[in-house]
Amino acid sequence: MNMDTLIELLQSVSNGEIDVDKAAHRLKHLAYEDIDFAHIDHHRSLRKGFPEVIFGEGKTAEQIQGILERMIVHENTVLVTRVDPEKAEAICQTQPDAVYHPDARIILCEKQPTEITGKGTILIVSAGTSDIPIAREAMLTAKAMGNRVQTVFDIGVAGIHRLMGHRELITDATVLIVVAGMEGALPSVVAGMTASPVIAVPTSIGYGVSLGGLTALFGMLSSCSSNVAVVNIDNGFGAGYMASAINHT
Amino acid sequence: MNMDTLIELLQSVSNGEIDVDKAAHRLKHLAYEDIDFAHIDHHRSLRKGFPEVIFGEGKTAEQIQGILERMIVHENTVLVTRVDPEKAEAICQTQPDAVYHPDARIILCEKQPTEITGKGTILIVSAGTSDIPIAREAMLTAKAMGNRVQTVFDIGVAGIHRLMGHRELITDATVLIVVAGMEGALPSVVAGMTASPVIAVPTSIGYGVSLGGLTALFGMLSSCSSNVAVVNIDNGFGAGYMASAINHT
Amino acid sequence: MNMDTLIELLQSVSNGEIDVDKAAHRLKHLAYEDIDFAHIDHHRSLRKGFPEVIFGEGKTAEQIQGILERMIVHENTVLVTRVDPEKAEAICQTQPDAVYHPDARIILCEKQPTEITGKGTILIVSAGTSDIPIAREAMLTAKAMGNRVQTVFDIGVAGIHRLMGHRELITDATVLIVVAGMEGALPSVVAGMTASPVIAVPTSIGYGVSLGGLTALFGMLSSCSSNVAVVNIDNGFGAGYMASAINHT
Amino acid sequence: MNMDTLIELLQSVSNGEIDVDKAAHRLKHLAYEDIDFAHIDHHRSLRKGFPEVIFGEGKTAEQIQGILERMIVHENTVLVTRVDPEKAEAICQTQPDAVYHPDARIILCEKQPTEITGKGTILIVSAGTSDIPIAREAMLTAKAMGNRVQTVFDIGVAGIHRLMGHRELITDATVLIVVAGMEGALPSVVAGMTASPVIAVPTSIGYGVSLGGLTALFGMLSSCSSNVAVVNIDNGFGAGYMASAINHT
Amino acid sequence: MNMDTLIELLQSVSNGEIDVDKAAHRLKHLAYEDIDFAHIDHHRSLRKGFPEVIFGEGKTAEQIQGILERMIVHENTVLVTRVDPEKAEAICQTQPDAVYHPDARIILCEKQPTEITGKGTILIVSAGTSDIPIAREAMLTAKAMGNRVQTVFDIGVAGIHRLMGHRELITDATVLIVVAGMEGALPSVVAGMTASPVIAVPTSIGYGVSLGGLTALFGMLSSCSSNVAVVNIDNGFGAGYMASAINHT
Amino acid sequence: MNMDTLIELLQSVSNGEIDVDKAAHRLKHLAYEDIDFAHIDHHRSLRKGFPEVIFGEGKTAEQIQGILERMIVHENTVLVTRVDPEKAEAICQTQPDAVYHPDARIILCEKQPTEITGKGTILIVSAGTSDIPIAREAMLTAKAMGNRVQTVFDIGVAGIHRLMGHRELITDATVLIVVAGMEGALPSVVAGMTASPVIAVPTSIGYGVSLGGLTALFGMLSSCSSNVAVVNIDNGFGAGYMASAINHT
Amino acid sequence: MNMDTLIELLQSVSNGEIDVDKAAHRLKHLAYEDIDFAHIDHHRSLRKGFPEVIFGEGKTAEQIQGILERMIVHENTVLVTRVDPEKAEAICQTQPDAVYHPDARIILCEKQPTEITGKGTILIVSAGTSDIPIAREAMLTAKAMGNRVQTVFDIGVAGIHRLMGHRELITDATVLIVVAGMEGALPSVVAGMTASPVIAVPTSIGYGVSLGGLTALFGMLSSCSSNVAVVNIDNGFGAGYMASAINHT
Amino acid sequence: MNMDTLIELLQSVSNGEIDVDKAAHRLKHLAYEDIDFAHIDHHRSLRKGFPEVIFGEGKTAEQIQGILERMIVHENTVLVTRVDPEKAEAICQTQPDAVYHPDARIILCEKQPTEITGKGTILIVSAGTSDIPIAREAMLTAKAMGNRVQTVFDIGVAGIHRLMGHRELITDATVLIVVAGMEGALPSVVAGMTASPVIAVPTSIGYGVSLGGLTALFGMLSSCSSNVAVVNIDNGFGAGYMASAINHT
Repeated sequence: MNMDTLIELLQSVSNGEIDVDKAAHRLKHLAYEDIDFAHIDHHRSLRKGFPEVIFGEGKTAEQIQGILERMIVHENTVLVTRVDPEKAEAICQTQPDAVYHPDARIILCEKQPTEITGKGTILIVSAGTSDIPIAREAMLTAKAMGNRVQTVFDIGVAGIHRLMGHRELITDATVLIVVAGMEGALPSVVAGMTASPVIAVPTSIGYGVSLGGLTALFGMLSSCSSNVAVVNIDNGFGAGYMASAINHT
Repeated sequence: MNMDTLIELLQSVSNGEIDVDKAAHRLKHLAYEDIDFAHIDHHRSLRKGFPEVIFGEGKTAEQIQGILERMIVHENTVLVTRVDPEKAEAICQTQPDAVYHPDARIILCEKQPTEITGKGTILIVSAGTSDIPIAREAMLTAKAMGNRVQTVFDIGVAGIHRLMGHRELITDATVLIVVAGMEGALPSVVAGMTASPVIAVPTSIGYGVSLGGLTALFGMLSSCSSNVAVVNIDNGFGAGYMASAINHT
Repeated sequence: MNMDTLIELLQSVSNGEIDVDKAAHRLKHLAYEDIDFAHIDHHRSLRKGFPEVIFGEGKTAEQIQGILERMIVHENTVLVTRVDPEKAEAICQTQPDAVYHPDARIILCEKQPTEITGKGTILIVSAGTSDIPIAREAMLTAKAMGNRVQTVFDIGVAGIHRLMGHRELITDATVLIVVAGMEGALPSVVAGMTASPVIAVPTSIGYGVSLGGLTALFGMLSSCSSNVAVVNIDNGFGAGYMASAINHT
Repeated sequence: MNMDTLIELLQSVSNGEIDVDKAAHRLKHLAYEDIDFAHIDHHRSLRKGFPEVIFGEGKTAEQIQGILERMIVHENTVLVTRVDPEKAEAICQTQPDAVYHPDARIILCEKQPTEITGKGTILIVSAGTSDIPIAREAMLTAKAMGNRVQTVFDIGVAGIHRLMGHRELITDATVLIVVAGMEGALPSVVAGMTASPVIAVPTSIGYGVSLGGLTALFGMLSSCSSNVAVVNIDNGFGAGYMASAINHT
Repeated sequence: MNMDTLIELLQSVSNGEIDVDKAAHRLKHLAYEDIDFAHIDHHRSLRKGFPEVIFGEGKTAEQIQGILERMIVHENTVLVTRVDPEKAEAICQTQPDAVYHPDARIILCEKQPTEITGKGTILIVSAGTSDIPIAREAMLTAKAMGNRVQTVFDIGVAGIHRLMGHRELITDATVLIVVAGMEGALPSVVAGMTASPVIAVPTSIGYGVSLGGLTALFGMLSSCSSNVAVVNIDNGFGAGYMASAINHT
Repeated sequence: MNMDTLIELLQSVSNGEIDVDKAAHRLKHLAYEDIDFAHIDHHRSLRKGFPEVIFGEGKTAEQIQGILERMIVHENTVLVTRVDPEKAEAICQTQPDAVYHPDARIILCEKQPTEITGKGTILIVSAGTSDIPIAREAMLTAKAMGNRVQTVFDIGVAGIHRLMGHRELITDATVLIVVAGMEGALPSVVAGMTASPVIAVPTSIGYGVSLGGLTALFGMLSSCSSNVAVVNIDNGFGAGYMASAINHT
Repeated sequence: MNMDTLIELLQSVSNGEIDVDKAAHRLKHLAYEDIDFAHIDHHRSLRKGFPEVIFGEGKTAEQIQGILERMIVHENTVLVTRVDPEKAEAICQTQPDAVYHPDARIILCEKQPTEITGKGTILIVSAGTSDIPIAREAMLTAKAMGNRVQTVFDIGVAGIHRLMGHRELITDATVLIVVAGMEGALPSVVAGMTASPVIAVPTSIGYGVSLGGLTALFGMLSSCSSNVAVVNIDNGFGAGYMASAINHT
Repeated sequence: MNMDTLIELLQSVSNGEIDVDKAAHRLKHLAYEDIDFAHIDHHRSLRKGFPEVIFGEGKTAEQIQGILERMIVHENTVLVTRVDPEKAEAICQTQPDAVYHPDARIILCEKQPTEITGKGTILIVSAGTSDIPIAREAMLTAKAMGNRVQTVFDIGVAGIHRLMGHRELITDATVLIVVAGMEGALPSVVAGMTASPVIAVPTSIGYGVSLGGLTALFGMLSSCSSNVAVVNIDNGFGAGYMASAINHT
């Protein structure tokens, strides 16, 4: 339940369209709902403008379904991240609005298409073909939160002219998400070309001293460009969410 | 040289106030200036809206002076970070506009007071008294870049009611910077209270498994709140810069 | 063999109900019993009030059975931890009193229901739905050791009002176990609300810089609240055991 | 202000001994007091039975003095930890009740001698002579919080008979604190001898792979004895505090 | 080919029993034999008293067979370590003298039973039941190298009286191998009870901060007992080899 | 398209053999070609003398095929590294010139046999039989880039005379690649025997403190011989590429 | 008090030369002596053939003196390790038999010259000039424990012929201690040349990825030679002690 | 003594200019010279074309002098690295040809100016002003070994146009050394612009997750450009040496 639907409900109470008991019933779980294995934070939409997102890893398909069906009562859009295909199939069968995006491992459940509310454009740049799944997780998240999104994939720093070929896109974007594994050098170079904020996403792509993404992460945090902040390894979702928060300030 | 002064110069050429030779001379180092031990990136103001910032660590006082005096010719504001008191004294003696802030280890050099250009307010919250120097580095940076800044210090999660007492400040801010050492839990809690973007700054305060700030850093990157992105340990400067970039989108 | 059954035996000897040979036979392995692949510490019940607990990982089903059948002769309750379903099935078939709890990966073998001997209540709080298996391992251990246990699941710090809604439970508990993965911030906040001792259990839930639970562990050890002590990652058993030790002082 | 002094104050108001204005003035900062560089949590005594403890590292002598003089108005006992001798001298000169314990790096400020409120005895055991300062930090903390404390120093596992010589002390203690550096094996052995809870404190004593105490810490967390929980490296204060919390359940 | 067989061969040449060509043929590969994917070090028996041992991990069954059949021509005993059951089956089918020991993952190939050449007794002590496979790898290696070996399994430090029950065995041994996972405390305690050299073997048994055996390893290296030296994690083979080297000085 | 074919094309335009439109069409993607999931850097042959190499890990067979078929239009030789057998089979079926080398996990696609252009000989030395796959990855890469290559396998430092037996090969080589796992000592010893540059390749062969190759890597970087530089763990490809670059200076 | 002096005392009692009270007085502290800050393990000489060694780091000069003067009553030889020059001066002034060896940071206190009791020769080899202090710590320890010791310094693997020049010394030694920093390759090469046991000592010499000796340590533990066991970084003392234990089997 | 001076000497013997005894005397230490604390490898010039380089760290000024004066007898050029100013002053006073370069911490001792023997040009590029000392260590080493060297300092990736301004220098160099701290991204970008081999040198410049240069090191090893090999952190000397080896193939 977000601010709009809350205000609507209260107006209905105010002008007598809905009686007090019914409204109270609808508001009963406004703070949170305890369903034994989860305390669903229904208040989050009001507080943060977007409902709680379900982290799929370590939860059973039944637990995800249980949380999802309670949430979709109150919300237009619910997102489930890090869902593997088997769980996804089970969940989508019981929830008609749920669509699974296998590359990004996301289930997106929308009652109505999301409208654009962000003021500018989010540009998502990825360093290698192997980084695309994480870039797409960021893209789907940002779109579900009402943002215009553009993408450019596979423009690593070993052929810097490919980056130069997209210079205009880069300087025009309101917020940028840069996704890179291995040495994670791309965000530094991109951030040096624009005054806009850059969210850097390290990926676990690489081997040996890539250390599952730690090297890319530490490289990005040590960036000699200053308009860069970083999220966890492979956290495309967090990058999309943070970019949306910036695009809605 | 930022966009305004460049346009002004070109207009003067256009209407004959300045002859071409003089203008060419002034624009000679527009891309960069090579002074042997440094390639000063004078183009940065144009590209990014704020001139190159001098990282003081590992440079001699002479090197910093050399760079500073070249830059101040073209810029209104020059920032030097991570300067210890001895170097600072030497530098400030030769540069009348330079002011040293010892707690934040910053030299701020302003020809004219900076005017507010950011659209909203940046709130800086720190977890402990010992984190204040880093919080102040962020504050001075953000102010030097034209932002309205508010601060609340020493409200750690061990007494969560202190945080609740500042709830309004938190929900009203356009961007937040949260500075914390030890377990670095504060950004998660603060980000859970607002829809605005939160820049988390881990500090090296703590001992034992604090690991010089790595624990706070990793905690912040693992945050269960999603509107959080992180900068390097003790990087108050970077947080201020990134918050300013967001506040100017 | 615990203190009660030892005293009972000696009294039976004293008043002639049991002859000396029989008693000697029963006490033969009081110190320990060597069964080739294990030295079973039968003396532990006497010394510590609870018999040796069998760590299932790295042992074959046959080895566990061998130890279990020797122990259950002398003890009312035997616990086997970290048992996977295949081994558990084999073991439970040969041991009628053995019950397997698959989520907690525990086999609990009780001849008689355990009675409550702990003086207060142990409250177990978990941060996320994915942390529940570890929380349940702690709960089963504490119950098997004679404690009253209450649980609250899924109240992470990203929605701090959920925690506030259980404030009374928290301040009333004699001992608390707080289970959390990711940034592991929950124990700091909970411990800040009570004067009782808090046992923090980091879990391996998370990804990237969660580092298999190390980040949660280090965060908990760096906690700015002082009534906190920590056990190994995913060690729900140890937390339950330690809480019971505290609840029996 | 703890529960006793709060009740006393309210009774004085109730029977007219103190007028409402005066009482309101005294209660003004009950929640917390904002002194610019610190938010003092005066409510902590009420909530947790002991006032906030000042972590001295990273604070200036002036900051510590400022916090101390605000706190001592409301409290009988104030503790400052991790204070080096120079700061301590400055602080103790302005605060007549403050006594500095150089080996434990603690300032203890007591208006009245603390009375014993803990129900049993806390035994502090240290593995080596070099671990004594941390053991003494634990001892001073536990005493300041109203506990009976006994100590045995320098009984490492390389001469296990020294430990056996103190077997009775060990089995009689209500709570134990075991302090050890290097391989940190002592808590496992001690915890195997008693049913009481053991708080293990790793120290940074050692070299090479001792890794500043990480090896002792990890060894203690991996302990094959189960009535053990662990605090941060060199955190004698936290161990004393946790032991007191247990001794007051 | 060891010293004995070399001398025998040369005596046969000397007294005309074997002609020079034949002897030269047999000695052709005395230094090493190049079989494309391996340089077999046949000289090792002469130099070190025991032939090269084949490290099975990362080699195909064909490669192991190829090396084995070249070596067994010259040697009485050949050892292959870290062989999984599938490879072992393939190898043992082609080599009649080869016997696979699945728990220790060793293939032992002996033409004649090895005779005892070591002067004393090697005692192998293991801390837990799960450490037995590594202890058995050490035992098989030491036996294959001509040593008298005794074993005591599962006597961890949580029940120190089990260790005391074997005190005589410990003080009588010429060399000791102590195998332990988790916190790895056992070698310190055992070494404190004897003047003989102790080889400590950390195992990867444990979870969480056991870090795959690193904690046990570092604990053993930090041991407060001095007659201890350490081999790699799970390196039962190396411990057996080193103990044999000591037992043959 | 490399320098030779570019010049040829331009001469054909110059002397009218090819009309301008056709030439323009062929040069359209000279900088790079955007095929949605990849920006193929066709300019690389011109710039670096060898076309982009496809990193197979994390790419689907379809993605690799898509890139491969675009590249082979312009190039004589295309290399795909880190391809597992399943993907390799799918790719080689659609590309007649592609040959898969399963031990080195490389697909080599050559329209014409590569001619030798390097001035000297590259010698590849490996420490153990298990290191051969990485050594062969280096060999195939160096050959594909036009170099004469020699190999010596399995000459570890535990039998230093095997190394001495190849002394001449070592001193005669123009560039050396030394591949070693475990303690990674071989490059130091080899580099001490020659004045030529040595590329050291650590492998992930080993267990326990080998740490997946980090120990070999750090050992090689700490080498007391100075004509050594190092590539990533298991990066046989990079070593071959770097050696070829040196052999073509 | 070692076995010889104990037997002598008991014989004196037996034949009336010493009366029982006097003997009892002398034996009062046979197990251990509690001097408040230390439990001196006087029993160690009996148990292990050499008295407790005082680890100087983290102890004050007063504490070392206190322990030393209690021990020297009962022992011929007392060793103090890791003593810096300031402390050493203070200690040696009060103890006439104490001699400080500044390079090895050892105080050796001998009432009578130690006689040779070890059966063979211990050879100490060091890789670089900078490793000599640790090699000398090993040498002094081994000599104090009654061993014949030879040394060869500065023969690193970058010039392997220097090692070959000392081949005879190496094959003749009963036990070897090999001291090396940086990549720590020397023990592998030396152990490959002899059948005798090799104690490897990593040193903290090096920089960057030497990681304070961890790289040398891990290299030694991963050694492809099997007659190698390892002690802690810079632990020359432990190596000397272990070598002596081996030399006295 | 290098190949030229050896041949000259032998010719003098051959034609009777020098008698055999004198020559034998001069060749006595050809293999190595044992001066107690060092085995000087005089053979190195013959074997590797450049004499042993003295690593100054951990050696006393006396030891360095002792080695230096033995070496300069046979060599034209001797290099001492990592010498701090105090030691340098002592050494240079006794050795007239020795010149100390304080920024690079190198003593260069040349009897005659070194002549250029390398075939091409070595270009040294550094990312930041703070990296210059390491770049200069590389430069002095390469020059001392007979190479033509060019340098470009302070062209980090945050202003990529500065790099583009030096494009010609980069493509013309025979070998490149790229020095960078922080995220270490520069070598990837530079190597993408040239076919020549690039030696990457990570520096310890940076803070927080720079981890003393490990992040730059790992980033360089994970580089997506393939003509890159890496040396130890801050190892400017090694980079200069390796570049010279390449430039002399």
